[in-house]
Amino acid sequence: MKIDLEQRILAANDELAAVNRARFAEAGVFVLDLMASPGAGKTSTILATIAALRDRYSIAVIEGDIASKVDAEKVRAHGIPAVQINTGGACHLESAMIRRAVDTLDLDALDLVIIENVGNLVCPSDFDLGEHAKVMILSVPEGHDKPYKYPNIFQVSEAVILNKYDTMSVFDFDEAEFRSVVASLNATVPIFPMSATKGDGVEPWAEWLAGRIEAMKAGVAS
Amino acid sequence: MKIDLEQRILAANDELAAVNRARFAEAGVFVLDLMASPGAGKTSTILATIAALRDRYSIAVIEGDIASKVDAEKVRAHGIPAVQINTGGACHLESAMIRRAVDTLDLDALDLVIIENVGNLVCPSDFDLGEHAKVMILSVPEGHDKPYKYPNIFQVSEAVILNKYDTMSVFDFDEAEFRSVVASLNATVPIFPMSATKGDGVEPWAEWLAGRIEAMKAGVAS
Repeated sequence: MKIDLEQRILAANDELAAVNRARFAEAGVFVLDLMASPGAGKTSTILATIAALRDRYSIAVIEGDIASKVDAEKVRAHGIPAVQINTGGACHLESAMIRRAVDTLDLDALDLVIIENVGNLVCPSDFDLGEHAKVMILSVPEGHDKPYKYPNIFQVSEAVILNKYDTMSVFDFDEAEFRSVVASLNATVPIFPMSATKGDGVEPWAEWLAGRIEAMKAGVAS
Repeated sequence: MKIDLEQRILAANDELAAVNRARFAEAGVFVLDLMASPGAGKTSTILATIAALRDRYSIAVIEGDIASKVDAEKVRAHGIPAVQINTGGACHLESAMIRRAVDTLDLDALDLVIIENVGNLVCPSDFDLGEHAKVMILSVPEGHDKPYKYPNIFQVSEAVILNKYDTMSVFDFDEAEFRSVVASLNATVPIFPMSATKGDGVEPWAEWLAGRIEAMKAGVAS
Protein backbone atom coordinates (compact mmCIF):
# COMPACT_ATOMS: atom_id res chain seq x y z
CA MET A 1 0.00 0.00 0.00
CA LYS A 2 1.33 3.44 -0.87
CA ILE A 3 2.25 5.76 1.96
CA ASP A 4 0.01 8.64 0.81
CA LEU A 5 -2.95 6.30 0.78
CA GLU A 6 -2.20 5.10 4.31
CA GLN A 7 -1.95 8.72 5.37
CA ARG A 8 -5.33 9.57 3.85
CA ILE A 9 -6.98 6.61 5.62
CA LEU A 10 -5.41 7.61 8.92
CA ALA A 11 -6.36 11.28 8.44
CA ALA A 12 -10.01 10.35 7.76
CA ASN A 13 -9.96 8.14 10.85
CA ASP A 14 -8.44 10.90 12.99
CA GLU A 15 -11.16 13.37 11.98
CA LEU A 16 -13.90 11.06 13.21
CA ALA A 17 -11.86 10.19 16.30
CA ALA A 18 -11.94 13.89 17.21
CA VAL A 19 -15.75 13.84 16.84
CA ASN A 20 -15.94 10.80 19.13
CA ARG A 21 -13.62 12.44 21.66
CA ALA A 22 -15.76 15.58 21.85
CA ARG A 23 -18.85 13.43 22.34
CA PHE A 24 -17.19 11.46 25.17
CA ALA A 25 -16.10 14.70 26.84
CA GLU A 26 -19.61 16.14 26.66
CA ALA A 27 -21.09 12.99 28.23
CA GLY A 28 -18.33 12.84 30.87
CA VAL A 29 -17.52 9.24 30.02
CA PHE A 30 -14.01 7.75 30.12
CA VAL A 31 -13.19 5.52 27.15
CA LEU A 32 -10.52 2.81 27.24
CA ASP A 33 -9.18 1.03 24.12
CA LEU A 34 -7.92 -2.41 25.17
CA MET A 35 -5.56 -4.10 22.71
CA ALA A 36 -3.88 -7.54 22.70
CA SER A 37 -3.11 -10.65 20.65
CA PRO A 38 -5.84 -13.22 20.08
CA GLY A 39 -6.28 -15.21 23.28
CA ALA A 40 -4.26 -12.94 25.56
CA GLY A 41 -7.30 -12.55 27.83
CA LYS A 42 -9.00 -9.32 26.73
CA THR A 43 -12.52 -10.47 27.58
CA SER A 44 -11.56 -12.01 30.92
CA THR A 45 -9.62 -8.83 31.81
CA ILE A 46 -12.73 -6.80 30.98
CA LEU A 47 -14.88 -9.06 33.16
CA ALA A 48 -12.37 -8.78 36.03
CA THR A 49 -12.29 -4.99 35.62
CA ILE A 50 -16.09 -4.83 35.66
CA ALA A 51 -16.18 -6.91 38.86
CA ALA A 52 -13.69 -4.54 40.50
CA LEU A 53 -15.31 -1.26 39.44
CA ARG A 54 -19.04 -1.85 38.87
CA ASP A 55 -20.01 -0.65 42.36
CA ARG A 56 -18.31 2.68 41.69
CA TYR A 57 -18.97 3.26 38.00
CA SER A 58 -21.62 2.65 35.38
CA ILE A 59 -19.86 0.62 32.65
CA ALA A 60 -20.54 -0.49 29.07
CA VAL A 61 -18.42 -2.52 26.65
CA ILE A 62 -17.87 -2.33 22.88
CA GLU A 63 -16.61 -5.65 21.54
CA GLY A 64 -14.63 -5.72 18.30
CA ASP A 65 -14.11 -8.94 16.37
CA ILE A 66 -13.67 -10.08 12.79
CA ALA A 67 -16.68 -12.36 13.26
CA SER A 68 -18.91 -13.82 16.02
CA LYS A 69 -20.69 -12.23 18.95
CA VAL A 70 -19.49 -14.57 21.70
CA ASP A 71 -17.64 -11.84 23.62
CA ALA A 72 -20.61 -9.45 23.79
CA GLU A 73 -22.76 -12.33 25.03
CA LYS A 74 -20.23 -13.12 27.77
CA VAL A 75 -20.29 -9.49 28.95
CA ARG A 76 -24.10 -9.20 28.81
CA ALA A 77 -24.35 -12.35 30.93
CA HIS A 78 -22.88 -10.18 33.72
CA GLY A 79 -25.63 -7.58 33.34
CA ILE A 80 -23.42 -5.03 31.54
CA PRO A 81 -24.52 -3.39 28.26
CA ALA A 82 -22.36 -4.63 25.37
CA VAL A 83 -22.31 -3.73 21.67
CA GLN A 84 -20.69 -6.16 19.24
CA ILE A 85 -18.87 -4.78 16.20
CA ASN A 86 -17.94 -7.29 13.51
CA THR A 87 -15.28 -5.80 11.26
CA GLY A 88 -15.94 -8.37 8.54
CA GLY A 89 -12.25 -8.91 7.89
CA ALA A 90 -10.55 -5.71 9.04
CA CYS A 91 -7.79 -6.31 11.58
CA HIS A 92 -8.58 -3.34 13.80
CA LEU A 93 -11.40 -1.02 14.85
CA GLU A 94 -11.78 2.44 13.30
CA SER A 95 -13.39 5.56 14.69
CA ALA A 96 -16.38 5.30 12.31
CA MET A 97 -17.24 1.89 13.78
CA ILE A 98 -17.03 3.32 17.30
CA ARG A 99 -19.28 6.23 16.35
CA ARG A 100 -21.98 3.81 15.17
CA ALA A 101 -21.59 1.59 18.25
CA VAL A 102 -21.84 4.58 20.59
CA ASP A 103 -25.17 5.54 18.99
CA THR A 104 -26.69 2.45 20.63
CA LEU A 105 -25.46 3.35 24.14
CA ASP A 106 -26.95 5.79 26.67
CA LEU A 107 -23.66 7.66 26.95
CA ASP A 108 -24.84 10.22 29.51
CA ALA A 109 -25.66 7.43 31.97
CA LEU A 110 -22.17 5.92 31.73
CA ASP A 111 -18.85 6.59 33.47
CA LEU A 112 -16.68 4.10 31.60
CA VAL A 113 -16.77 2.50 28.16
CA ILE A 114 -14.25 -0.29 27.55
CA ILE A 115 -13.52 -1.04 23.89
CA GLU A 116 -12.13 -4.51 23.20
CA ASN A 117 -10.16 -4.12 19.98
CA VAL A 118 -9.61 -6.93 17.44
CA GLY A 119 -6.97 -9.44 18.56
CA ASN A 120 -3.83 -8.07 16.95
CA LEU A 121 -0.56 -6.43 18.11
CA VAL A 122 -0.09 -4.41 14.92
CA CYS A 123 -2.95 -2.51 13.31
CA PRO A 124 -4.95 -1.36 16.38
CA SER A 125 -1.99 0.70 17.60
CA ASP A 126 -2.21 3.00 14.54
CA PHE A 127 -5.88 3.94 14.87
CA ASP A 128 -7.11 6.66 17.21
CA LEU A 129 -10.72 5.84 18.20
CA GLY A 130 -11.23 8.97 20.29
CA GLU A 131 -10.40 7.04 23.46
CA HIS A 132 -8.81 8.57 26.56
CA ALA A 133 -6.23 5.81 26.88
CA LYS A 134 -4.94 2.83 24.95
CA VAL A 135 -3.90 -0.07 27.19
CA MET A 136 -2.43 -3.38 26.06
CA ILE A 137 -2.35 -6.88 27.47
CA LEU A 138 0.57 -9.22 26.89
CA SER A 139 0.04 -12.75 28.17
CA VAL A 140 2.95 -14.74 29.59
CA PRO A 141 2.63 -17.63 27.08
CA GLU A 142 3.32 -15.17 24.23
CA GLY A 143 6.89 -14.71 25.44
CA HIS A 144 9.05 -11.89 26.75
CA ASP A 145 10.49 -11.04 23.31
CA LYS A 146 7.30 -9.42 21.99
CA PRO A 147 8.36 -5.78 22.69
CA TYR A 148 11.27 -6.31 20.25
CA LYS A 149 8.90 -7.47 17.52
CA TYR A 150 5.91 -5.19 18.10
CA PRO A 151 7.48 -2.01 19.52
CA ASN A 152 4.75 0.40 18.40
CA ILE A 153 1.94 -1.03 20.53
CA PHE A 154 4.17 -0.86 23.62
CA GLN A 155 4.94 2.78 22.77
CA VAL A 156 1.34 3.94 22.40
CA SER A 157 0.00 2.09 25.47
CA GLU A 158 -0.48 4.00 28.73
CA ALA A 159 -0.45 0.79 30.78
CA VAL A 160 0.62 -2.80 30.11
CA ILE A 161 -1.21 -5.71 31.73
CA LEU A 162 0.96 -8.84 31.98
CA ASN A 163 -1.77 -11.48 32.02
CA LYS A 164 -1.73 -15.23 32.78
CA TYR A 165 0.96 -14.36 35.31
CA ASP A 166 0.13 -17.56 37.22
CA THR A 167 1.57 -19.59 34.32
CA MET A 168 5.03 -17.99 34.65
CA SER A 169 6.53 -21.25 35.93
CA VAL A 170 5.25 -23.18 32.87
CA PHE A 171 6.83 -20.86 30.29
CA ASP A 172 10.35 -19.62 29.73
CA PHE A 173 9.42 -15.95 30.34
CA ASP A 174 12.23 -13.61 31.43
CA GLU A 175 10.34 -10.91 33.34
CA ALA A 176 13.45 -8.80 34.01
CA GLU A 177 14.28 -8.66 30.30
CA PHE A 178 10.63 -7.93 29.44
CA ARG A 179 10.50 -5.01 31.88
CA SER A 180 13.81 -3.68 30.64
CA VAL A 181 12.79 -3.70 26.96
CA VAL A 182 9.36 -2.21 27.70
CA ALA A 183 11.05 0.57 29.71
CA SER A 184 13.38 1.30 26.79
CA LEU A 185 10.32 1.80 24.54
CA ASN A 186 8.09 3.61 27.03
CA ALA A 187 9.97 4.79 30.09
CA THR A 188 7.07 5.50 32.44
CA VAL A 189 4.46 2.91 31.46
CA PRO A 190 3.20 0.88 34.45
CA ILE A 191 3.16 -2.94 34.11
CA PHE A 192 0.42 -4.80 36.01
CA PRO A 193 0.96 -8.54 36.55
CA MET A 194 -2.47 -10.20 36.59
CA SER A 195 -4.30 -13.51 36.35
CA ALA A 196 -7.63 -12.22 35.10
CA THR A 197 -9.52 -15.53 35.18
CA LYS A 198 -8.44 -16.10 38.80
CA GLY A 199 -8.92 -12.48 39.85
CA ASP A 200 -5.31 -12.14 41.05
CA GLY A 201 -3.59 -8.78 40.64
CA VAL A 202 -6.73 -7.00 39.42
CA GLU A 203 -6.84 -4.36 42.15
CA PRO A 204 -3.71 -2.32 41.26
CA TRP A 205 -4.86 -2.18 37.63
CA ALA A 206 -8.44 -1.26 38.59
CA GLU A 207 -7.15 1.49 40.91
CA TRP A 208 -4.95 2.89 38.13
CA LEU A 209 -7.98 2.99 35.85
CA ALA A 210 -10.16 4.54 38.58
CA GLY A 211 -7.48 7.20 39.03
CA ARG A 212 -7.64 8.03 35.33
CA ILE A 213 -11.45 8.19 35.42
CA GLU A 214 -11.38 10.54 38.43
CA ALA A 215 -8.77 12.75 36.78
CA MET A 216 -10.96 13.02 33.70
CA LYS A 217 -14.03 13.83 35.78
CA ALA A 218 -12.09 16.48 37.73
CA GLY A 219 -11.02 17.99 34.42
CA VAL A 220 -14.60 17.99 33.17
CA ALA A 221 -15.86 19.59 36.37
CA SER A 222 -13.24 22.33 36.50
CA MET B 1 -10.74 1.35 3.31
CA LYS B 2 -12.89 1.12 0.20
CA ILE B 3 -13.51 -2.30 -1.28
CA ASP B 4 -12.23 -1.42 -4.78
CA LEU B 5 -8.98 -0.26 -3.26
CA GLU B 6 -8.58 -3.47 -1.29
CA GLN B 7 -9.26 -5.39 -4.47
CA ARG B 8 -6.59 -3.47 -6.38
CA ILE B 9 -4.02 -4.12 -3.65
CA LEU B 10 -4.88 -7.82 -3.59
CA ALA B 11 -4.80 -8.06 -7.41
CA ALA B 12 -1.33 -6.49 -7.55
CA ASN B 13 -0.19 -8.90 -4.85
CA ASP B 14 -1.65 -11.90 -6.69
CA GLU B 15 0.20 -10.99 -9.90
CA LEU B 16 3.56 -11.07 -8.14
CA ALA B 17 2.55 -14.21 -6.24
CA ALA B 18 2.14 -15.94 -9.60
CA VAL B 19 5.66 -14.83 -10.54
CA ASN B 20 7.00 -16.25 -7.27
CA ARG B 21 5.07 -19.50 -7.79
CA ALA B 22 6.57 -20.01 -11.25
CA ARG B 23 10.04 -19.36 -9.87
CA PHE B 24 9.55 -21.91 -7.05
CA ALA B 25 8.28 -24.50 -9.56
CA GLU B 26 11.30 -23.96 -11.82
CA ALA B 27 13.69 -24.43 -8.88
CA GLY B 28 11.74 -27.44 -7.57
CA VAL B 29 11.47 -25.93 -4.11
CA PHE B 30 8.45 -26.36 -1.82
CA VAL B 31 7.36 -23.17 -0.06
CA LEU B 32 5.37 -23.12 3.18
CA ASP B 33 3.68 -20.01 4.60
CA LEU B 34 3.43 -20.43 8.39
CA MET B 35 0.90 -18.15 10.10
CA ALA B 36 -0.02 -17.64 13.78
CA SER B 37 -0.64 -15.12 16.54
CA PRO B 38 2.32 -13.43 18.22
CA GLY B 39 3.90 -15.91 20.60
CA ALA B 40 2.09 -19.03 19.36
CA GLY B 41 5.45 -20.68 18.68
CA LYS B 42 6.18 -20.06 14.99
CA THR B 43 9.97 -19.90 15.38
CA SER B 44 10.14 -22.92 17.71
CA THR B 45 7.92 -24.89 15.33
CA ILE B 46 10.27 -23.97 12.48
CA LEU B 47 13.28 -25.10 14.53
CA ALA B 48 11.55 -28.40 15.40
CA THR B 49 10.64 -28.91 11.74
CA ILE B 50 14.22 -28.24 10.67
CA ALA B 51 15.49 -30.77 13.23
CA ALA B 52 13.07 -33.39 11.90
CA LEU B 53 13.71 -32.83 8.18
CA ARG B 54 17.24 -31.41 7.73
CA ASP B 55 18.78 -34.83 7.01
CA ARG B 56 16.37 -35.31 4.12
CA TYR B 57 15.94 -31.81 2.73
CA SER B 58 17.93 -28.65 2.17
CA ILE B 59 16.00 -25.92 4.01
CA ALA B 60 15.99 -22.13 4.23
CA VAL B 61 13.78 -19.75 6.21
CA ILE B 62 12.30 -16.32 5.45
CA GLU B 63 11.42 -14.49 8.67
CA GLY B 64 8.75 -11.79 8.60
CA ASP B 65 8.43 -9.29 11.44
CA ILE B 66 7.36 -5.70 11.96
CA ALA B 67 10.77 -5.00 13.49
CA SER B 68 13.84 -6.84 14.84
CA LYS B 69 15.95 -9.66 13.45
CA VAL B 70 15.94 -11.97 16.48
CA ASP B 71 14.13 -14.80 14.69
CA ALA B 72 16.52 -14.96 11.73
CA GLU B 73 19.42 -15.02 14.18
CA LYS B 74 17.85 -17.94 16.07
CA VAL B 75 17.48 -19.92 12.83
CA ARG B 76 21.00 -19.10 11.59
CA ALA B 77 22.38 -20.32 14.92
CA HIS B 78 21.25 -23.78 13.75
CA GLY B 79 23.25 -23.50 10.53
CA ILE B 80 20.22 -22.84 8.31
CA PRO B 81 20.14 -19.89 5.86
CA ALA B 82 17.64 -17.26 7.02
CA VAL B 83 16.50 -13.96 5.49
CA GLN B 84 14.83 -11.38 7.73
CA ILE B 85 12.10 -9.20 6.28
CA ASN B 86 11.04 -6.22 8.39
CA THR B 87 7.68 -4.94 7.21
CA GLY B 88 8.14 -1.61 8.97
CA GLY B 89 4.58 -1.61 10.27
CA ALA B 90 2.62 -3.79 7.86
CA CYS B 91 0.72 -6.59 9.58
CA HIS B 92 1.46 -9.27 6.95
CA LEU B 93 3.95 -10.26 4.28
CA GLU B 94 3.24 -9.53 0.61
CA SER B 95 4.50 -11.28 -2.49
CA ALA B 96 6.80 -8.37 -3.43
CA MET B 97 8.65 -8.79 -0.11
CA ILE B 98 9.02 -12.52 -0.75
CA ARG B 99 10.37 -11.86 -4.25
CA ARG B 100 13.12 -9.65 -2.83
CA ALA B 101 13.93 -12.12 -0.04
CA VAL B 102 14.17 -15.01 -2.50
CA ASP B 103 16.75 -13.05 -4.52
CA THR B 104 19.20 -13.58 -1.65
CA LEU B 105 18.72 -17.38 -1.53
CA ASP B 106 20.27 -20.08 -3.74
CA LEU B 107 16.86 -21.43 -4.67
CA ASP B 108 18.11 -24.26 -6.92
CA ALA B 109 20.04 -25.77 -4.00
CA LEU B 110 16.95 -25.87 -1.75
CA ASP B 111 14.08 -28.33 -1.26
CA LEU B 112 12.05 -26.39 1.28
CA VAL B 113 11.59 -22.71 2.14
CA ILE B 114 9.60 -21.95 5.28
CA ILE B 115 8.16 -18.44 5.49
CA GLU B 116 7.34 -17.22 8.99
CA ASN B 117 4.61 -14.65 8.48
CA VAL B 118 4.01 -11.67 10.82
CA GLY B 119 2.26 -12.67 14.06
CA ASN B 120 -1.39 -12.06 13.21
CA LEU B 121 -4.50 -14.20 12.67
CA VAL B 122 -6.12 -11.75 10.26
CA CYS B 123 -4.19 -10.09 7.44
CA PRO B 124 -1.76 -12.91 6.44
CA SER B 125 -4.67 -15.14 5.43
CA ASP B 126 -5.66 -12.73 2.63
CA PHE B 127 -2.28 -12.54 0.91
CA ASP B 128 -1.05 -15.17 -1.55
CA LEU B 129 2.77 -15.21 -1.46
CA GLY B 130 3.14 -17.84 -4.19
CA GLU B 131 3.52 -20.56 -1.53
CA HIS B 132 2.45 -24.19 -2.00
CA ALA B 133 0.62 -24.34 1.30
CA LYS B 134 -0.50 -22.05 4.08
CA VAL B 135 -0.37 -23.69 7.51
CA MET B 136 -1.40 -22.12 10.81
CA ILE B 137 -0.45 -22.64 14.42
CA LEU B 138 -2.89 -22.11 17.25
CA SER B 139 -1.40 -22.40 20.72
CA VAL B 140 -3.42 -23.84 23.59
CA PRO B 141 -3.15 -20.70 25.79
CA GLU B 142 -4.98 -18.69 23.09
CA GLY B 143 -8.17 -20.67 23.75
CA HIS B 144 -10.47 -22.99 21.83
CA ASP B 145 -12.82 -20.21 20.73
CA LYS B 146 -10.45 -18.72 18.15
CA PRO B 147 -12.00 -20.44 15.09
CA TYR B 148 -15.24 -18.57 15.85
CA LYS B 149 -13.43 -15.25 15.87
CA TYR B 150 -10.91 -15.74 13.06
CA PRO B 151 -12.67 -18.16 10.69
CA ASN B 152 -10.82 -17.16 7.51
CA ILE B 153 -7.35 -18.27 8.59
CA PHE B 154 -8.75 -21.69 9.55
CA GLN B 155 -10.39 -21.91 6.12
CA VAL B 156 -7.28 -21.12 4.07
CA SER B 157 -4.91 -23.34 6.08
CA GLU B 158 -4.04 -26.81 4.77
CA ALA B 159 -2.94 -28.01 8.21
CA VAL B 160 -3.42 -26.70 11.77
CA ILE B 161 -0.71 -27.20 14.39
CA LEU B 162 -2.09 -27.12 17.95
CA ASN B 163 1.02 -26.00 19.80
CA LYS B 164 1.90 -25.84 23.51
CA TYR B 165 -0.21 -28.97 23.82
CA ASP B 166 1.67 -29.87 27.01
CA THR B 167 -0.01 -26.91 28.76
CA MET B 168 -3.53 -28.26 28.14
CA SER B 169 -4.00 -29.00 31.86
CA VAL B 170 -3.14 -25.39 32.79
CA PHE B 171 -5.73 -23.80 30.49
CA ASP B 172 -9.45 -24.24 30.06
CA PHE B 173 -9.14 -25.51 26.45
CA ASP B 174 -12.00 -27.66 25.11
CA GLU B 175 -10.25 -29.76 22.45
CA ALA B 176 -13.46 -31.50 21.32
CA GLU B 177 -15.19 -28.16 20.70
CA PHE B 178 -12.09 -26.81 18.97
CA ARG B 179 -11.93 -29.79 16.60
CA SER B 180 -15.64 -29.59 15.91
CA VAL B 181 -15.58 -25.88 14.98
CA VAL B 182 -12.43 -26.27 12.86
CA ALA B 183 -14.07 -29.18 11.01
CA SER B 184 -17.14 -27.02 10.34
CA LEU B 185 -14.90 -24.41 8.69
CA ASN B 186 -12.52 -26.76 6.88
CA ALA B 187 -13.78 -30.33 6.81
CA THR B 188 -10.58 -32.17 5.86
CA VAL B 189 -7.84 -30.11 7.51
CA PRO B 190 -5.53 -32.22 9.71
CA ILE B 191 -4.83 -30.99 13.26
CA PHE B 192 -1.40 -31.81 14.72
CA PRO B 193 -1.04 -31.54 18.52
CA MET B 194 2.55 -30.52 19.26
CA SER B 195 4.87 -29.14 21.91
CA ALA B 196 7.47 -27.60 19.65
CA THR B 197 9.94 -26.53 22.34
CA LYS B 198 9.91 -30.04 23.84
CA GLY B 199 9.93 -31.82 20.49
CA ASP B 200 6.72 -33.75 21.28
CA GLY B 201 4.33 -34.49 18.41
CA VAL B 202 6.66 -33.13 15.73
CA GLU B 203 6.92 -36.34 13.69
CA PRO B 204 3.33 -36.60 12.34
CA TRP B 205 3.52 -32.96 11.25
CA ALA B 206 6.97 -33.38 9.69
CA GLU B 207 5.78 -36.49 7.81
CA TRP B 208 2.73 -34.62 6.50
CA LEU B 209 5.04 -31.87 5.24
CA ALA B 210 7.49 -34.41 3.74
CA GLY B 211 4.53 -36.02 1.95
CA ARG B 212 3.60 -32.64 0.43
CA ILE B 213 7.23 -32.01 -0.63
CA GLU B 214 7.45 -35.45 -2.27
CA ALA B 215 4.13 -34.94 -4.06
CA MET B 216 5.41 -31.62 -5.42
CA LYS B 217 8.69 -33.20 -6.54
CA ALA B 218 6.81 -36.07 -8.21
CA GLY B 219 4.71 -33.50 -10.03
CA VAL B 220 7.82 -31.60 -11.12
CA ALA B 221 9.54 -34.79 -12.31
CA SER B 222 6.59 -36.15 -14.25
